[in-house]
Amino acid sequence: MAQEKKLVEAITSMETDFAQWYTDVVKKAELIEYSSVRGCMILRPNGYSIWENIQKELDSRFKATGVENVYMPMFIPESLLQKEKDHVEGFAPEVAWVTHGGLEPLQERLCVRPTSETLFCDFYSNIIQSYRDLPKLYNQWCSVVRWEKTTRPFLRSMEFLWQEGHTAHATAEQAEERTIQMLNVYADFCEQVLAIPMIKGRKSEKEKFAGAHATYTIEALMHDGKALQSGTSHNFGDGFAKAFDIQYTDNENKLQYVHQTSWGMSTRIIGAIIMVHGDDSGLVLPPRIAPTQVMIVPIMQKKEGVLEKAAEIKEKLGAYRVKVDDADKSPGWKFSEQEMRGIPIRIEIGPKDIEANQAVIVRRDTREKITVSLDEIDKKVGEILTLMQAEMLERARTHRDTHTYTATNMEEFAQTVAQKPGFIKAMWCEDEACEKEIKEKTGATSRCMPFEQEKIADTCVCCGKPAKTMAYWGKAY
Amino acid sequence: MAQEKKLVEAITSMETDFAQWYTDVVKKAELIEYSSVRGCMILRPNGYSIWENIQKELDSRFKATGVENVYMPMFIPESLLQKEKDHVEGFAPEVAWVTHGGLEPLQERLCVRPTSETLFCDFYSNIIQSYRDLPKLYNQWCSVVRWEKTTRPFLRSMEFLWQEGHTAHATAEQAEERTIQMLNVYADFCEQVLAIPMIKGRKSEKEKFAGAHATYTIEALMHDGKALQSGTSHNFGDGFAKAFDIQYTDNENKLQYVHQTSWGMSTRIIGAIIMVHGDDSGLVLPPRIAPTQVMIVPIMQKKEGVLEKAAEIKEKLGAYRVKVDDADKSPGWKFSEQEMRGIPIRIEIGPKDIEANQAVIVRRDTREKITVSLDEIDKKVGEILTLMQAEMLERARTHRDTHTYTATNMEEFAQTVAQKPGFIKAMWCEDEACEKEIKEKTGATSRCMPFEQEKIADTCVCCGKPAKTMAYWGKAY
Repeated sequence: MAQEKKLVEAITSMETDFAQWYTDVVKKAELIEYSSVRGCMILRPNGYSIWENIQKELDSRFKATGVENVYMPMFIPESLLQKEKDHVEGFAPEVAWVTHGGLEPLQERLCVRPTSETLFCDFYSNIIQSYRDLPKLYNQWCSVVRWEKTTRPFLRSMEFLWQEGHTAHATAEQAEERTIQMLNVYADFCEQVLAIPMIKGRKSEKEKFAGAHATYTIEALMHDGKALQSGTSHNFGDGFAKAFDIQYTDNENKLQYVHQTSWGMSTRIIGAIIMVHGDDSGLVLPPRIAPTQVMIVPIMQKKEGVLEKAAEIKEKLGAYRVKVDDADKSPGWKFSEQEMRGIPIRIEIGPKDIEANQAVIVRRDTREKITVSLDEIDKKVGEILTLMQAEMLERARTHRDTHTYTATNMEEFAQTVAQKPGFIKAMWCEDEACEKEIKEKTGATSRCMPFEQEKIADTCVCCGKPAKTMAYWGKAY
Repeated sequence: MAQEKKLVEAITSMETDFAQWYTDVVKKAELIEYSSVRGCMILRPNGYSIWENIQKELDSRFKATGVENVYMPMFIPESLLQKEKDHVEGFAPEVAWVTHGGLEPLQERLCVRPTSETLFCDFYSNIIQSYRDLPKLYNQWCSVVRWEKTTRPFLRSMEFLWQEGHTAHATAEQAEERTIQMLNVYADFCEQVLAIPMIKGRKSEKEKFAGAHATYTIEALMHDGKALQSGTSHNFGDGFAKAFDIQYTDNENKLQYVHQTSWGMSTRIIGAIIMVHGDDSGLVLPPRIAPTQVMIVPIMQKKEGVLEKAAEIKEKLGAYRVKVDDADKSPGWKFSEQEMRGIPIRIEIGPKDIEANQAVIVRRDTREKITVSLDEIDKKVGEILTLMQAEMLERARTHRDTHTYTATNMEEFAQTVAQKPGFIKAMWCEDEACEKEIKEKTGATSRCMPFEQEKIADTCVCCGKPAKTMAYWGKAY
């Protein structure tokens, strides 16, 4: 079979070429297919079902904090996009413009939303009148478009799926509280469900969102030592409220501007799952996010009783997401296919196993083989999934921590960037000139000023003036 | 309060002006808000949560038949849209065109998908090689854009949310089987969950989908006697496969074209829920689709123990979707707000009720008041929700059946259309000329040729020649 041949070909190893390894995994695990539209990818069932699980998990966490879902139009009239000065400057160069509807040119062109602050603000200015209408805690799941020059699956594409939360509050304090609350929701979700530890912190003025008062971020370290911004939460203060005239009457009947936030996580996070957990055999999915947690592979499946026993085991594992691979292919072929796809547990069951009332469980991450009695297979599978989830997080944390360095002067900083891919913790005067100089000299950007501060030195790593903050730096996706 | 005043104003009655009643309900039940983009609506939490429930129900029904979800790009290059002749003729006049990306004009313009047959075909031509790759049973949840001249909330908007399933099969029989299977999924869902009875049948050649071999439809009758096409399922035969060169090698190693289907249901169905079940006090939601099934309204809520008892009842009703309305508003205000929003059951609980260990349950559809002991309130709520669901379906069915007429000649037909809004069953020769004449003379269109045929007469209601089929006719949204 042409298809079999394609899969059995080894993927590029991480050591040889990490970028090619990534592309191979994404393609051969059938997460995506390229489309005939430049920079737009097709999310295939293996990829989309991961996103469905992310949605389910995040959505219930959002709703638990009082958030409600809405759906806004995908088009933004040019005049609306232009209402907030910094925002339009940030986004106008990278939007797609609709200029014709049917056979007619439009009187005003519309951009396809790159993000929906302007639409939410316009909406809020219509529906918020009184302090009784606050807070508004809205979110939408949708796709957005940014006209990127170079694209990579999940990491940077012209169109991508995401959620964008937009809230409006009576006071600055409530807005700040919500901004941090949602950043924590993201970080907890990534740690607990995706087994990816996050650094939480504030973005520099240079790196913050166009129009935001402050941007907070969660940053993860990939296997190759590059950082990935994995989710952001913005406090807008009352900047957008003033631009869009969103006012409410307070309980003393005075007009006040609302304070707003927005926060988003996208399919980009699937790139993080791949690059944090994957290995040279393909994807490794944390059990809590894996669309299929257990794949049962019947051995000598044409022998009487084998498929029946496989079905029986599946039945017994009803608490988990389980499939039986009864395709007309060899077990060896199935093993490598499922490894490629990152399925956490494989169960092998053949005539000899049945005779011994046992099955072989193979963990995807460690390849450990565990022979278990069929009588307690459900209990054992549960234990292994829990253990695997915990150990994957710990391995990712250890990798991050052993690839986090410090630097107190530029020589040390540049040497570390050049020789040891990872995070660098270094002091900073918070001057944008130093940030730019560091980027020009080393290629590393400021990732964030973490909530958990440490004092590495007294002076800025770049200019030597008194430092104000410790920041994380690194090369980033 | 300005907001209170707005809601307490009566909505237009159905009898006075059905169209205005519809617009009032949609707006005052806060299902939608108009946006600053012509013809695009904002789905507010009350509206979007209905769609979320529709998605949840349909999605699990799709998956039970083996369907997997994917996500395709929202853009279609003009050359791709043009590959199938009938399809491009049907859709090109009503698409939005993206001509610029960032600051640059595009070499080839892209349309925003009005539907995604062309993208799926292009995808399938890349991933289908062998009979082992079939069937492909893919679906996506997304928004699509059609540049409509006149728009109405839910019923016809420039952008709307929907799902579109696209399947590829080895044989014509399998494609036809899947087409009918999905039509049945839609019809069952509408009857069981939305309490809307459907007429299932085939569309005429004139009304079928651009590029389809055959289109099947489910048609519902609204309260005003107009028909609403509520979901469609298309059999494409191998037409698209030939245009897009989607071939597979069969088990004798011969090249064959695949046979395809597509099927869709959209937010339009929310319009049907409103117009089938609503009344002069607003929306009436069938319990199975209602985001909130029970609203508990505390009476004299500042009295000690009232809010506590309301919370206790909510706890006891954990099997249902229940909220307590503890807003600082009068009970009367809350009653009409919840009626407007169509919440199936209201529970009133005040100091006197607590003393008597009882509560008052009020059904939204019949307004019936039922006093129940708090000891059995969960059982009673369950019974009432079940009964209400069943009775809403029966009322809708009775309304439809008593508004379905027959006609055997054009005079009778025209008179019925003019005087008795509803479905008309009439025989037809299947000649498009008659279909056009009927539309011109009466405004009624052929809704479908139902699977359940009856013989009303021997001759076509229009031309008097021998009839081939019985069709449903009516004015439609």
